[in-house]
Amino acid sequence: MATRVLTPQSEDFPRWYQDVIARAELAENGPVRGTMVIRPAGYAIWERIQAELDARIKEAGVENAYFPLLLPQSYLSREAEHVEGFSPELAVVTHAGGKELEEPVVVRPTSETIIGEYMSKWVNSYRDLPLLLNQWSNVVRWELRPRVFLRTSEFLWQEGHTAHRTQQEAAAFAEKIHREVYEDFMVNVLAVPVVRGRKTKAERFAGAVNTLTLEAMMRDGKALQMATSHELGQNFARAFNISYLSDAGQQEHAWTTSWGSSTRMIGALIMSHGDDDGLRIPPRLAPVHALVMIVKEGEGVREAAEALVEGLRRGGMRAKLDDRVDTAFGRRAVDAELKGIPLRFELGPRDLADGKVTMVRRIMGGKAEVSLDQAVELAAEALIVDHQALYDEAEVRLDLRTEDVENLEDAVAASQNGLARIPWAKLGVEGEKQLAQSSVTVRCLIREDGEFPTTDDDPDAIAVVGRAY
Amino acid sequence: MATRVLTPQSEDFPRWYQDVIARAELAENGPVRGTMVIRPAGYAIWERIQAELDARIKEAGVENAYFPLLLPQSYLSREAEHVEGFSPELAVVTHAGGKELEEPVVVRPTSETIIGEYMSKWVNSYRDLPLLLNQWSNVVRWELRPRVFLRTSEFLWQEGHTAHRTQQEAAAFAEKIHREVYEDFMVNVLAVPVVRGRKTKAERFAGAVNTLTLEAMMRDGKALQMATSHELGQNFARAFNISYLSDAGQQEHAWTTSWGSSTRMIGALIMSHGDDDGLRIPPRLAPVHALVMIVKEGEGVREAAEALVEGLRRGGMRAKLDDRVDTAFGRRAVDAELKGIPLRFELGPRDLADGKVTMVRRIMGGKAEVSLDQAVELAAEALIVDHQALYDEAEVRLDLRTEDVENLEDAVAASQNGLARIPWAKLGVEGEKQLAQSSVTVRCLIREDGEFPTTDDDPDAIAVVGRAY
Ligand SMILES: [Zn+2]
Ligand SMILES: [Zn+2]
Repeated sequence: MATRVLTPQSEDFPRWYQDVIARAELAENGPVRGTMVIRPAGYAIWERIQAELDARIKEAGVENAYFPLLLPQSYLSREAEHVEGFSPELAVVTHAGGKELEEPVVVRPTSETIIGEYMSKWVNSYRDLPLLLNQWSNVVRWELRPRVFLRTSEFLWQEGHTAHRTQQEAAAFAEKIHREVYEDFMVNVLAVPVVRGRKTKAERFAGAVNTLTLEAMMRDGKALQMATSHELGQNFARAFNISYLSDAGQQEHAWTTSWGSSTRMIGALIMSHGDDDGLRIPPRLAPVHALVMIVKEGEGVREAAEALVEGLRRGGMRAKLDDRVDTAFGRRAVDAELKGIPLRFELGPRDLADGKVTMVRRIMGGKAEVSLDQAVELAAEALIVDHQALYDEAEVRLDLRTEDVENLEDAVAASQNGLARIPWAKLGVEGEKQLAQSSVTVRCLIREDGEFPTTDDDPDAIAVVGRAY
Repeated sequence: MATRVLTPQSEDFPRWYQDVIARAELAENGPVRGTMVIRPAGYAIWERIQAELDARIKEAGVENAYFPLLLPQSYLSREAEHVEGFSPELAVVTHAGGKELEEPVVVRPTSETIIGEYMSKWVNSYRDLPLLLNQWSNVVRWELRPRVFLRTSEFLWQEGHTAHRTQQEAAAFAEKIHREVYEDFMVNVLAVPVVRGRKTKAERFAGAVNTLTLEAMMRDGKALQMATSHELGQNFARAFNISYLSDAGQQEHAWTTSWGSSTRMIGALIMSHGDDDGLRIPPRLAPVHALVMIVKEGEGVREAAEALVEGLRRGGMRAKLDDRVDTAFGRRAVDAELKGIPLRFELGPRDLADGKVTMVRRIMGGKAEVSLDQAVELAAEALIVDHQALYDEAEVRLDLRTEDVENLEDAVAASQNGLARIPWAKLGVEGEKQLAQSSVTVRCLIREDGEFPTTDDDPDAIAVVGRAY
């Protein structure tokens, strides 16, 4: 773009992030501190994320359900006598029905406890297992330093909760979700390369015996946790009394897992792929693959544009017509760039006279006059290439900005630019604490062979460390 | 079914309703009064309702967005000084972040006000119109006499809000949504015949100048309001200052509409189609069209059952395998009846030896041995027939139990059995008040020609009156 539309990333990355969210009309701050309004352009991305994840979740045999927003206080703080006794992240309803409630109720920060209570009712026999549940919902966690999509007082997410007969089955299921739902989505739809691994004890979810994570590198070198899957052992089942009569006639506690991902992933998408002209949406995720723009009205132009939209749709692409000819064309083009639509076709009377249309590629750049007859075929090819190009670009960045180091000092230094890989044996729990002084955390532990460590002190584990969102 | 699984409808309809919800595992009460847990079998129905409505909403050019759950108190009661000053239906958060909030915030009972505030920011020029927004979300309205799916303190719904340049355009859009989204869905997917009409002034949504409704008759003769669409004139735009610079250079207020439908429709589905054996789900809505049940394991049985599932899927049907052979077959069959799955195929070693399978039809009843080779084709045919049969059955009931009357006394009498149609000229505002004493309400006004009256006192309007949920 000739004119500067956004603060350049190199100048001020956080400011660029805010700019692109505003200018691409993805979201705005809500009136209550820390909340966000997700605008149509942003919500369409979330719908596509949901659809892709949901299909994979169902393919894994999981069923969706819905649990109430409001929880009795006893579900969250069994001892709190007054609402000030609640965790600061909770929003507490004290009044409803026009009067003060006898017991305050809490807006769910997660549905873990209520799902636990009902699982306990629903699981009686080994025949009731595995019980595989997922919920798509909003949750509220009061946020003092909000940042749209990354940390908001209300966010949208999915949380899966499953119960199994054996530890092996639970462990395998948590890993299956991690690989076949989350990682597959990130790599093959979001075009984001991820570092997979096991969380250290310090970084692990409190109730878990094992937390798997996927971490991505943003364009400023910082890590973003994309999704986590927890193996909860029998801890959760003991707390909620999720037990079953085994086929051997014994009363046993179930083994449970939980796993989640949220609107944070929109933040990851923006910071992984966005550039100084705006968003770049990976083709398989894009709500609109191709925007067909009428540059100027003229004999047959609208008909040709509509025919192209139809052709693209028949070719399996999501295509949209932009006929806002009473808005300056430059502004419409900037808008399409900002929104990151992978392809646009610009059509006016002169192009049409030559049987041509101008094809503009957002992801790798480039603009060419192409024959109208070939436009659909070229679009389909471009989208395939562009997914891979976007992934490769992110992977090259991840590789270039990940450094193998042998001591803590070098790990901190490397973290200023990206990630560092350091043998866990050389870092350890003490080293992890020291890193924290430089705002560097262990993102995950992974074995050289790419497998997850199965213990907290696997001698072959590599710690991947960095600054994180 | 030989054994009595549910309270018969004829004995106690409300009890039957509760029974079927519990036994078909659709939902349960939540721990906070008036809330509900929607179980997988119920939520799968909601997902299908959402998918079908959402596709129609998008087809009408509407975009989805998401607005925050928590609203500043000023959005709901501009004068309330203390939380007791709020409407009794509101749930009020007074504490968050570990302390008392300076200003309490309210859990949305609808997003109307917040959408109004943002529409006002987003609409500046005639180029910004029409602005067509929809939101899928949960809302909270404190309910003292809750009833699962019908009246709950939290429910799931969609609310559409649109702004237009002219009254004509707004009116046409509200009617378009009413016909092409709601009515089309109810007739062609839910298989529920509806009475369409205009609400009287007394029954109309407060801010509306015109409210359109669709009303269905349940199996006990009572009416259920299925969805409403409101024309808000310029009232809403004035309240929220949604104004735009017209192409003539004038500052004008927009004309707005709103429209909604909710998890109530699951209640309508149950009470329209359910019978003494459980639910009957209309085929186009059914999460599972056909359940393939292994009656007993045996040489090749599983393979044949899996092949049938595959064949049904290739035939465009949603098919599921039930191989829970360690559960008594009778119980599994009762469960499938209760859940209202349109078709089931029962397959065991003896059937397979004959190249046969038993096909059981839930909707119109009937059981037949059919050739395995023909099962897929027969299933596809059965589903087409069954949709129509279910619709016809409901329509016959609606017709038989709707009486044309000429005076108020007869209208009240007819309302004990179903609906009454009485000329509005003979009822009027005064008659409407008298009906209320017998718990009978005017469900809607409709002209003899089936068109919507365009005024509150159309001399040709017929009032459709009855008892309602
Ligand atoms: Zn009070
Ligand atoms: Zn207090």
